[in-house]
Amino acid sequence: MASVEPSIVDPSLRDQLDIVIPTIRNLDFLEMWRPFFENYHLIIVQDGDPSKVINVPEGFDYELYNRNDINRILGPKASCISFKDSACRCFGYMVSKKKYIFTIDDDCFVAKDPTGKDINALEQHIKNLLTPSSPFFFNTLYDPYREGADFVRGYPFSLREGVPTAVSHGLWLNIPDYDAPTQLVKPAERNKRYVDAVMTIPKGTLFPMCGMNLGFNRDLIGPAMYFGLMGDGQPIGRYDDMWAGWCVKVICDHLGLGVKTGLPYIWHSKASNPFVNLKKEYKGIFWQEEIIPFFQQVVLPKEATTVEQCYLELSKHVKEKLSTIDPYFTKLSEAMVTWIEAWGELNAPDSKAADFKPSKVGTRTAK
Amino acid sequence: MASVEPSIVDPSLRDQLDIVIPTIRNLDFLEMWRPFFENYHLIIVQDGDPSKVINVPEGFDYELYNRNDINRILGPKASCISFKDSACRCFGYMVSKKKYIFTIDDDCFVAKDPTGKDINALEQHIKNLLTPSSPFFFNTLYDPYREGADFVRGYPFSLREGVPTAVSHGLWLNIPDYDAPTQLVKPAERNKRYVDAVMTIPKGTLFPMCGMNLGFNRDLIGPAMYFGLMGDGQPIGRYDDMWAGWCVKVICDHLGLGVKTGLPYIWHSKASNPFVNLKKEYKGIFWQEEIIPFFQQVVLPKEATTVEQCYLELSKHVKEKLSTIDPYFTKLSEAMVTWIEAWGELNAPDSKAADFKPSKVGTRTAK
Repeated sequence: MASVEPSIVDPSLRDQLDIVIPTIRNLDFLEMWRPFFENYHLIIVQDGDPSKVINVPEGFDYELYNRNDINRILGPKASCISFKDSACRCFGYMVSKKKYIFTIDDDCFVAKDPTGKDINALEQHIKNLLTPSSPFFFNTLYDPYREGADFVRGYPFSLREGVPTAVSHGLWLNIPDYDAPTQLVKPAERNKRYVDAVMTIPKGTLFPMCGMNLGFNRDLIGPAMYFGLMGDGQPIGRYDDMWAGWCVKVICDHLGLGVKTGLPYIWHSKASNPFVNLKKEYKGIFWQEEIIPFFQQVVLPKEATTVEQCYLELSKHVKEKLSTIDPYFTKLSEAMVTWIEAWGELNAPDSKAADFKPSKVGTRTAK
Repeated sequence: MASVEPSIVDPSLRDQLDIVIPTIRNLDFLEMWRPFFENYHLIIVQDGDPSKVINVPEGFDYELYNRNDINRILGPKASCISFKDSACRCFGYMVSKKKYIFTIDDDCFVAKDPTGKDINALEQHIKNLLTPSSPFFFNTLYDPYREGADFVRGYPFSLREGVPTAVSHGLWLNIPDYDAPTQLVKPAERNKRYVDAVMTIPKGTLFPMCGMNLGFNRDLIGPAMYFGLMGDGQPIGRYDDMWAGWCVKVICDHLGLGVKTGLPYIWHSKASNPFVNLKKEYKGIFWQEEIIPFFQQVVLPKEATTVEQCYLELSKHVKEKLSTIDPYFTKLSEAMVTWIEAWGELNAPDSKAADFKPSKVGTRTAK
C-alpha cells in the first residue's frame, strides 16, 4: 500500500462510530451481526407507528427513537424528517455525537468472501474511511492504499498523498439494488460476483449512492447526508439515498473530499416488491433525467467552505432550477434549510442533551 | 447484462483484429499464447538492430517489420516512429488494415483466473470492445453489460444505451506496472489480487494507460494511438503509452467514446531494471506534473469531429502550452502532425499496398 500518515485513532473506532438502523420490525437480523456490532453503539430509528414495540436482541448497546421522539426533539423542524420511508434514518445521523456513522438496512446480513469467510463489513468501511481517496486521477490497480497495491506508473507523484475520505459506499451480494423496471424485467437476477476492489469515484463523476450499506465521516460530510423528503405525504420514495448521494458528491468534489465504493459486501436477503417500488419510484425515474444534469452542472461558490454553507447554497440552486419540474422541489429545498438548522441546533456546543432522550435504550452485556 | 444491440460481427473477430507485438528478441512467449492467438494475424515490430534475426514459432500467421522496413515505407516520415523503445509498436497500428488491434508485450504470459483456468485475454478484450461503455455516470456494480450485472437503481435510463467502446485496457498479475521509484522502494511487491471487474473510466477523468495488454478499436480511435517520441535520441522513455493514454482519453471524451479498464489480466513475468527505468523516466516524472493538468484542462473545438482533426488540434495545444517545459515538446508536437500525415498516407484508399511489404512473413499451419 501507498504510505499513509500514521493515525492516532483506535483502528476499531469503537468509541467514535455509531451504527444507524432504520426499521419497522423486530431487529432479529442483529443476531447475525453480533460478533461485529456488539462493541458499538446503535442508533435505531423506528419508522411508522410509534406505539409498536420493536424488539432488539439482548446485549446490544442502543438508543431507539420513534416518531414521537423525533417530533419532541425537533419540534416544528421535525417536518424535514421523512415518515414511512427509510429516509428517516438521517435523524440518526443528526442525533449522533460520533465522528463516524455506519448505516445498514435490517434486511442485510453478513456475506461471505470467496473463501467462505464471514465478511466484517464494518471493519472494511473503517479501513476505507481511515485511508485517503484519490479523486483527481484514476488508479488502474484500484485503491492504492490497500495492502499489496500502490499507485501505478504514470500516476502523478503530487497527487499520491490523496485527500480525506468522507464516504465509504459498500455493495450487496444476492439481491442487487435495482430499480423497479429492472426488478420486473429480471426478477431472478442475483449478484454473485465478488469484486475484490475499493476505488475512489473520480471528481466530477456522480454515482447512485445506496443507503443499505454505507459508512461516512460525520465530521467531514454529515450535514450533507440528508435523505430528503420521501414517503408519507410526498410524491416520491426510494430516492432518499440517491438525493443524498448527489448532494454529497457535489459537495465532496467542491471541498476536496473523497468518496469510495466497492468493498465491503453485505448479503441482501430479500427483494422489495417491484410493483410497490414502481409506484414509489416512477416520478423519480423521469425527474432524475433532469436532476442529474442539474447536479452535473451546479457550481458552488468558492466562499462556501463548510458543508453547511455548501448545502445551503445547493438548496438555493434546487429551488431556482428544479422547482420548474414540480412544486415538490420548492418544498424539498425548504426542508434542506430546515435540516441544516436542526443539525445546527442538535450539534451546537450548548444543546440540551436532555432533550435528546430516546424512547428506549439497551445496554451492552457485561463481560 | 443490460440489453445490447445485436451485432452482426463474428464475435471472435478473427478477420477483423490484428495482434501487434513490439520486440527485440525471439518470440518464444507465443508458444504459451498459441491456443488463443493461432487464428489471428500478428504484426511484429522489431525494434533495434534490423539485421538481427527474430525467430517466430512456426504456425503463426504474421508479418514482421524492422527499422529498415519502417524507413522504406514511411520515408522521411519515419522520424515520427521511435527507435530503441517499445513505442515503435504504433507503427503496427498504422500498417494494419483491421478494425481492431490487440497489443501485448513479449514478457507477458497467460494468467490464470482464481479457479486455475487459463485466461483468454483476447476474448475478454473483444467482449469489452463489442459492448458499450458508460462514461457519463458511475455504475456501482461495474460493467452493466456483463452477464449477471446491470445498471443499478438511480442510473438514468437515458444513459443506459451507452456509447461505443474505443479502448479496452487490461491489467497484470505478478509484476505490477510501477514506476522506477516505486520499483526501487518495493522490489518484492507482486500483484496477487484478481479483481473480477471491467469498468468505464468516467468522462473527464484521466488514467495511466499501459501498453502491455491493450485492445482498441482502430476505426474509432486509431489515429490517436500514437506512442510519441521515446528512446533513441529522445530525452525520455517509458512514457509512450502514457502519452497515448492522455491523448486518447481527451479525444474519447470529446467524441463521446468509451474507455474501459479492468479484465483481462495477463501474467507479467519480469520486472524491468529499476535503475535503467529511472534514467528513462526521470524527466517524465516531473514533466507529468505539468502535462497532466494540461490534459485535464485542454478543450477541443466543437468543429473537431474526427480523430485526426482532434489530434491535430491537440498537437497545436501541445506546441503552445508544453513547449515552455522543454523544447522536446515542440519536436513532439511536430511528430504528432507527421504521424497523422503518415497515417493518412498508409490508410488512403489508393495507398500502394506493395510499399508495405514486411521483411518477413509467416503463415498459419494448415489444419
